[in-house]
Amino acid sequence: MTASADPAGRTCGTLAGVNEAERQALELAVELAARGAGTVLPNPVVGCVLLSPSGQIVGRGWHQRAGGPHAEVVALADAGDAARGATAVVTLEPCNHTGRTGPCSQALIAAGVAKVIVAVRDPWPAAAGGVDVLRAAGVEVHEVGDTDSPAEDVNRVWLTATRKRRAFVTFKAGMTIDARVAAADGTSRWITSPESRADVHRLRGEVDTMMVGVGTVLADDPLLTVRDADGELVGRQPLRVVIDSPGRTPSDARVRNDDAETLIATAAEFGHGRRVDVGAVLSELYRRGRRHVLLEGGPRLATSMLDAGLVDEVVVYIAPLLLGAGRSLLDGSAVDTLTAAHRAELVAVDRFGPDVRLRYTVRG
Amino acid sequence: MTASADPAGRTCGTLAGVNEAERQALELAVELAARGAGTVLPNPVVGCVLLSPSGQIVGRGWHQRAGGPHAEVVALADAGDAARGATAVVTLEPCNHTGRTGPCSQALIAAGVAKVIVAVRDPWPAAAGGVDVLRAAGVEVHEVGDTDSPAEDVNRVWLTATRKRRAFVTFKAGMTIDARVAAADGTSRWITSPESRADVHRLRGEVDTMMVGVGTVLADDPLLTVRDADGELVGRQPLRVVIDSPGRTPSDARVRNDDAETLIATAAEFGHGRRVDVGAVLSELYRRGRRHVLLEGGPRLATSMLDAGLVDEVVVYIAPLLLGAGRSLLDGSAVDTLTAAHRAELVAVDRFGPDVRLRYTVRG
Repeated sequence: MTASADPAGRTCGTLAGVNEAERQALELAVELAARGAGTVLPNPVVGCVLLSPSGQIVGRGWHQRAGGPHAEVVALADAGDAARGATAVVTLEPCNHTGRTGPCSQALIAAGVAKVIVAVRDPWPAAAGGVDVLRAAGVEVHEVGDTDSPAEDVNRVWLTATRKRRAFVTFKAGMTIDARVAAADGTSRWITSPESRADVHRLRGEVDTMMVGVGTVLADDPLLTVRDADGELVGRQPLRVVIDSPGRTPSDARVRNDDAETLIATAAEFGHGRRVDVGAVLSELYRRGRRHVLLEGGPRLATSMLDAGLVDEVVVYIAPLLLGAGRSLLDGSAVDTLTAAHRAELVAVDRFGPDVRLRYTVRG
Repeated sequence: MTASADPAGRTCGTLAGVNEAERQALELAVELAARGAGTVLPNPVVGCVLLSPSGQIVGRGWHQRAGGPHAEVVALADAGDAARGATAVVTLEPCNHTGRTGPCSQALIAAGVAKVIVAVRDPWPAAAGGVDVLRAAGVEVHEVGDTDSPAEDVNRVWLTATRKRRAFVTFKAGMTIDARVAAADGTSRWITSPESRADVHRLRGEVDTMMVGVGTVLADDPLLTVRDADGELVGRQPLRVVIDSPGRTPSDARVRNDDAETLIATAAEFGHGRRVDVGAVLSELYRRGRRHVLLEGGPRLATSMLDAGLVDEVVVYIAPLLLGAGRSLLDGSAVDTLTAAHRAELVAVDRFGPDVRLRYTVRG
């Protein structure tokens, strides 16, 4: 096993058998894949780069939107005749099923590709098997299979959702330095800056579902829509989900308006005694084709989901304020000692106006 | 008034009348001044650069340690005969008193310096007046007088202490993402990484006083000393102060050991009814020559000091953990609504191992 450092300085293993041109092509394929973030759900993001036998890039493609052509098909079209004998470097195992588009494994074989380098295996049974089909057709296949790679990172939401058969959950909150999300009198607008709130709308534009507890609906009556700087609705609106154990969402709550679809998840439908089983809601969302939930509060719901292993990512916007009283980001956890704390990994630090945004992956 | 951008991208005003060579000399003088951090207390850090009439650097100096020569004297010695007719660029008004060293204003006059550029006026009455003395001797003086300048920043601790006649307070804590400083069962060792804890020892080495509430003594029995990676005492040890209203510090508390001086501040001595008046303690510390207090907890003491306007800086080390229960960074504040929140300004973001450190200046 060889090791090299990616741009973030992390060591990537299991690139044995991959030459320098192929390694660079894989980096490029990951960059291409990332361009599909927010528009391909419920599909994965995928990037593909075709290399000539001498290592020149002869084609590139990425999956741009759900229902559109897959990355491999775009790259093959880009390469034309140069695809014959080429090496295809793909971030995800080429699909082997006929959905809205034909199977990519067949397209690669038909184009005469000689070798395929696969960064990550497809965990979705209906689509998997592309590697076997390619090998059966005499195509050389090299699997990188690194679970800590940029190709894994770029698809973390989709891969996690597919492996767990439930929607991936990003918990996001705006808070003070002392992690208060509201003052003692309940006031919380606005803790964070306009720059942070604009980034929240960007984040909402990348998910297919938004979730809150009924307490947040009663306290803030949020719209839970994606809006631009002028407050206008933009693009496809995520599904709005309210976790509402006793069924208290008012009939005139703004979250019920016609701006987007809404699911009021009650104990009667997703019951677990008198409580909503949020895991069951996330599984149902997965069955309905939803892959990425943005959890926007409140603290009790977020804490119970965290304790249940149902939070995959945490994004906090920290405003330069100190309250010293009020509601905390998380509260009421069953964790009572330090060694039992939930562990995460800091993956990004960014500044938005006077605020700082910290993004963490929660360790499963 | 002209404006230019410093390396941090902030706009600095009031540099009208300062040419490019002088502006660069001021930047260098600030860098030189910063080298004295942690060794010059109770004095300010000061840097001085001497420019020839053609704008060449002919001398540089900084105040290296309390009792040692002042920056101007070092720079004059560095320049030798080239000081005659030179321009002295200094981060702080040259002193006008005879302390452990002679007055710098006289030294500049005696060396034949033609012009002095002063970034910040000395707020200490006993030392101030250097500008007037220089002008009376026929030396041209230009005062930058920018209260939002790098020269002000580099000396923020000393300037604030001198203006307020009390020790400057940095509140420091290690916490989880949800701002818990201890779990529900009281466990708190160790929330942060060894890298963060090493940085705390570096921070302790820069202050002249450490402060805790008696609750922290009873809970953690800390030593409050500056130690190296091997746990050995290093350098000058700060004074240890325990805020102990009812006089509960045990006679065998480790903070009372011989590693460093200790002040147990009780209501009997610093009383305000049955409570210790921490403002009175900080004023007394100033009278005793202490300028920089590192406040290490606990949450109640820190919150009451914050509410009383006695916290100047906040440094938090955020570990990648989520507790959802336990003690918060701050608690029991009188602030009950968002608009009354204490405001701060994020001045630095740094990573230590898996943790992130955020440094804030609290707005007075």
